[in-house]
Amino acid sequence: MEPFRNIGILGREGSGIGETLQRLIVFLRSRALNIIVGDQIEHLVEPSLLQDARICSRKMIGEVSDLIIVVGGDGSLLAAARTLARFDVPVLGVNRGRLGFLTDVSPDEIEQRVGEVLDGHYRIEKRFLLDVTVKHNGEPNGTADALNDVVVNSGTSAKMIEFELYIEGEFVYRQRSDGLIVSTPTGSTAYSLSAGGPIMHPRLDAIVLVPMFPHTLTSRPIVVDGNSEIKIVICENDVAQLPVTCDGQVNLTAQCGDVVYITKKPHKLKMIHPLTHSFYASCRDKLGWSTSHY
Amino acid sequence: MEPFRNIGILGREGSGIGETLQRLIVFLRSRALNIIVGDQIEHLVEPSLLQDARICSRKMIGEVSDLIIVVGGDGSLLAAARTLARFDVPVLGVNRGRLGFLTDVSPDEIEQRVGEVLDGHYRIEKRFLLDVTVKHNGEPNGTADALNDVVVNSGTSAKMIEFELYIEGEFVYRQRSDGLIVSTPTGSTAYSLSAGGPIMHPRLDAIVLVPMFPHTLTSRPIVVDGNSEIKIVICENDVAQLPVTCDGQVNLTAQCGDVVYITKKPHKLKMIHPLTHSFYASCRDKLGWSTSHY
Amino acid sequence: MEPFRNIGILGREGSGIGETLQRLIVFLRSRALNIIVGDQIEHLVEPSLLQDARICSRKMIGEVSDLIIVVGGDGSLLAAARTLARFDVPVLGVNRGRLGFLTDVSPDEIEQRVGEVLDGHYRIEKRFLLDVTVKHNGEPNGTADALNDVVVNSGTSAKMIEFELYIEGEFVYRQRSDGLIVSTPTGSTAYSLSAGGPIMHPRLDAIVLVPMFPHTLTSRPIVVDGNSEIKIVICENDVAQLPVTCDGQVNLTAQCGDVVYITKKPHKLKMIHPLTHSFYASCRDKLGWSTSHY
Amino acid sequence: MEPFRNIGILGREGSGIGETLQRLIVFLRSRALNIIVGDQIEHLVEPSLLQDARICSRKMIGEVSDLIIVVGGDGSLLAAARTLARFDVPVLGVNRGRLGFLTDVSPDEIEQRVGEVLDGHYRIEKRFLLDVTVKHNGEPNGTADALNDVVVNSGTSAKMIEFELYIEGEFVYRQRSDGLIVSTPTGSTAYSLSAGGPIMHPRLDAIVLVPMFPHTLTSRPIVVDGNSEIKIVICENDVAQLPVTCDGQVNLTAQCGDVVYITKKPHKLKMIHPLTHSFYASCRDKLGWSTSHY
Repeated sequence: MEPFRNIGILGREGSGIGETLQRLIVFLRSRALNIIVGDQIEHLVEPSLLQDARICSRKMIGEVSDLIIVVGGDGSLLAAARTLARFDVPVLGVNRGRLGFLTDVSPDEIEQRVGEVLDGHYRIEKRFLLDVTVKHNGEPNGTADALNDVVVNSGTSAKMIEFELYIEGEFVYRQRSDGLIVSTPTGSTAYSLSAGGPIMHPRLDAIVLVPMFPHTLTSRPIVVDGNSEIKIVICENDVAQLPVTCDGQVNLTAQCGDVVYITKKPHKLKMIHPLTHSFYASCRDKLGWSTSHY
Repeated sequence: MEPFRNIGILGREGSGIGETLQRLIVFLRSRALNIIVGDQIEHLVEPSLLQDARICSRKMIGEVSDLIIVVGGDGSLLAAARTLARFDVPVLGVNRGRLGFLTDVSPDEIEQRVGEVLDGHYRIEKRFLLDVTVKHNGEPNGTADALNDVVVNSGTSAKMIEFELYIEGEFVYRQRSDGLIVSTPTGSTAYSLSAGGPIMHPRLDAIVLVPMFPHTLTSRPIVVDGNSEIKIVICENDVAQLPVTCDGQVNLTAQCGDVVYITKKPHKLKMIHPLTHSFYASCRDKLGWSTSHY
Repeated sequence: MEPFRNIGILGREGSGIGETLQRLIVFLRSRALNIIVGDQIEHLVEPSLLQDARICSRKMIGEVSDLIIVVGGDGSLLAAARTLARFDVPVLGVNRGRLGFLTDVSPDEIEQRVGEVLDGHYRIEKRFLLDVTVKHNGEPNGTADALNDVVVNSGTSAKMIEFELYIEGEFVYRQRSDGLIVSTPTGSTAYSLSAGGPIMHPRLDAIVLVPMFPHTLTSRPIVVDGNSEIKIVICENDVAQLPVTCDGQVNLTAQCGDVVYITKKPHKLKMIHPLTHSFYASCRDKLGWSTSHY
Repeated sequence: MEPFRNIGILGREGSGIGETLQRLIVFLRSRALNIIVGDQIEHLVEPSLLQDARICSRKMIGEVSDLIIVVGGDGSLLAAARTLARFDVPVLGVNRGRLGFLTDVSPDEIEQRVGEVLDGHYRIEKRFLLDVTVKHNGEPNGTADALNDVVVNSGTSAKMIEFELYIEGEFVYRQRSDGLIVSTPTGSTAYSLSAGGPIMHPRLDAIVLVPMFPHTLTSRPIVVDGNSEIKIVICENDVAQLPVTCDGQVNLTAQCGDVVYITKKPHKLKMIHPLTHSFYASCRDKLGWSTSHY
């Protein structure tokens, strides 16, 4: 018995994506699977290929699919992940852009790797997301999710911010810096890494807090248990509304006196990997561990 | 013979500054010196103290003074420096804010330290400034000065930029990062330091280029000769107008295809230090070298 | 009822230790507790104070005590911890040296803080240790424990080593560097921190691997689950016998072809903290978070 | 007129070096140049190729040659440089090992690149060396040279050292760390870089001081003018004799109370580069700037 019968397909417009989408659909059709295509990418595919397919909004696709395949870069997968995490549907990424840590099937091996997954040869890895809530005068003022990271900064050029950090209710420090990155293990190979954060294995249950250009030279990345409640209290700043950025998208803002709460979401994203996938192999490949000796 | 007869005074409004200004003026009057006060701070001083003083715009004060005393934090001195560098007048900083690398006289030792300087016991240290020009289609589109640093970045939250760097006409790299900091030795203990740049001794004739959160882990700060021409070519970016920030002030913008040229200015700032001043002592004090052992 | 009746005392010879030991013993006698003193420090205490006390080897003291108090610096506590971990006895550190992350009672508050603990006002924190085994031709060749960290390096000046790293059996990288630091959360504020490792909260169940001056600029600290098996395969090196250093003590050596296995020990150290203790307060104090702004 | 008639050849035994040496000699013979071969490598070359050649010690070869070609890795060139700097003879490196920053001709382009140089198409770059003197009770106790770097550390595993640093006679700090790296621009892409030092352009007249795993988190690399006198005063340490390592070779030792003086040597090494050589191209290639994006 095949583990997946209803296959949802998501993606984002971009160069070459149409070709990869069509190759994927042709392959899925050859296996007589039900295909559900996100309405954002319908126009990228030749109509004849979609004659038996269902077209669906991104919100609905999680409900009707057994497996979602995201075609695009890490950004596409991040966007899909935030929508899909509350459904229990597993997600597989086909990398169409530059190197990706999340999208580990390359377009020219679609038939082989996706085929393996459809044959039941895969591993499921659960990735947790962060729940971000901004409270104003103690009342929730906005909420968002992040699979990679949450960034609180000034959002404008050359403006430092000041904030207080509490972990599990305990005061950590009051800091003046360009901002703070709060990252999951999934995000630890993205923005957090360029800011000096450690690489965290995807299966680690931890959150890292990385200061951005802190004015205290002794501020270092701090890794805490994944179940910790992170609380950032915004002090008085030159900028009235600080952006709170989730996975590179500005979703929320916070002002003086507001409190940003960050905790682990109860629902996890189920990522599917071909059995050949290895996190450290991705690191070697994408970070250049094997080539940049000097 | 006294080395300085006409003493210009500059500063910026802020808590406690009036008190320090008055103490300074009282002291200078007791030595029967000619006092020229910047028009921005006239209202902070009791009128009776200014009856023999001349009031002057910041632009003019450089021409009529033998010595300029700046009362304020490093920010005030940076602002004054950019205006005064083209005059040959030396500048002394009285620190009114937090710790300062540029303002090395504290308010409670005004009489002693300023007295020493007026008695001829001082050292002059020349600090170079950077000349920043943005060219659009090969034509200069704006120009500005910086004593500390020039920052090119996206100016908005969570947006990477892409640019090409050339030094002395030689291609260095094409980089995707949050931006680039180009810093003088004077600026090396400021923003550049929080971004991982080295400390450079004020007398070193060098410029450091510090990548901000680069997406290539192998990008490191590069130190080049102070006479090098730095050229940053802006590639296509999500943000149309990138801010070019000089000493923390956005002075210029650059767009895709524009070229930012950064070179040493021919005129240098003459900073005056009491003979007790030591750069490394400032580092020990302000960076916490002596206290933060673990 | 008092939670602890038999109090073991350990320490290491050093300036001022005798005085602190005697103050502690006087206090414990005033509470009519049974005192067991490590034989290494017996001579540091006035005989009259020890007339009812039992003298014991460090190995035995874990068996006969309900609570061990270690007087000394972090080094003394590390040494005691490695011996005591297999007993279930909790350990309290009285800091006699420089700042300590492990010894959080200062000598001048012995009566108050130790008193609180004896009254039952304390928190127990379990810290895991690492088990280090060197295998030669597949056979164990030596074994040791570490509470802070395990360091594999060349042990001599200016010699790089080459090794392969495996985590959970998966190949991570082959690296040329000065060596590798494998640290617990407890050790993350010690040597690992100076090598660029992140701060890890003591309650985090994780291990960090920090490369020492790697010749690949893209090598970064890696944080993995605390239950991971770390395997270091020694390649051919200029130095025949590489020291394997546990908590700063060379306990083992490894040569070309040998494999160093590092895993979490099943027994944990029970550290006792007064209720006023806070990990982040220690960081603020000992790392200078509050003082070294610039 | 050919600029060079007498060509000295140096190198170090190693895999593949004989082949490259012979290819070089064949080429030089084809241009009817006088060949002088270092006595250390004579046995690596077929005798028939050396019938007109002069065999010479490394010390003498600098006197009788117009150009020295070093075949080997950066290590070979470093060794040759220290011997040859006091002669005025230029040096060209043929890279036989791994990537090299100093040896920029690859074996398979010997005829073309060496040919260009012999035709007068080259650039000369002067690289300064460091002069290292250890004084014991004020008397010189040993002296050595370094083209890359001088390292003072404990020389044994897991031992911190304590020292005081003075620059131009001014006290900088007293530091506890694993040691200190003092590097030239030439050495800034070697050991200093792995310790977090900046890249310094070869033509910069500067020295960088990089702390090794300092116990003060606020200690950062310091760049000073190349003419500065660096003075390291050794404090009391656990290790009696600290090695003073020059370019990776232990040449000197220093004990408690000894003073290590480091200054620029008056004689510079004249390095020859083909006109195609570019420092930044070496960085892109050898540090992986172009490949390790993520």
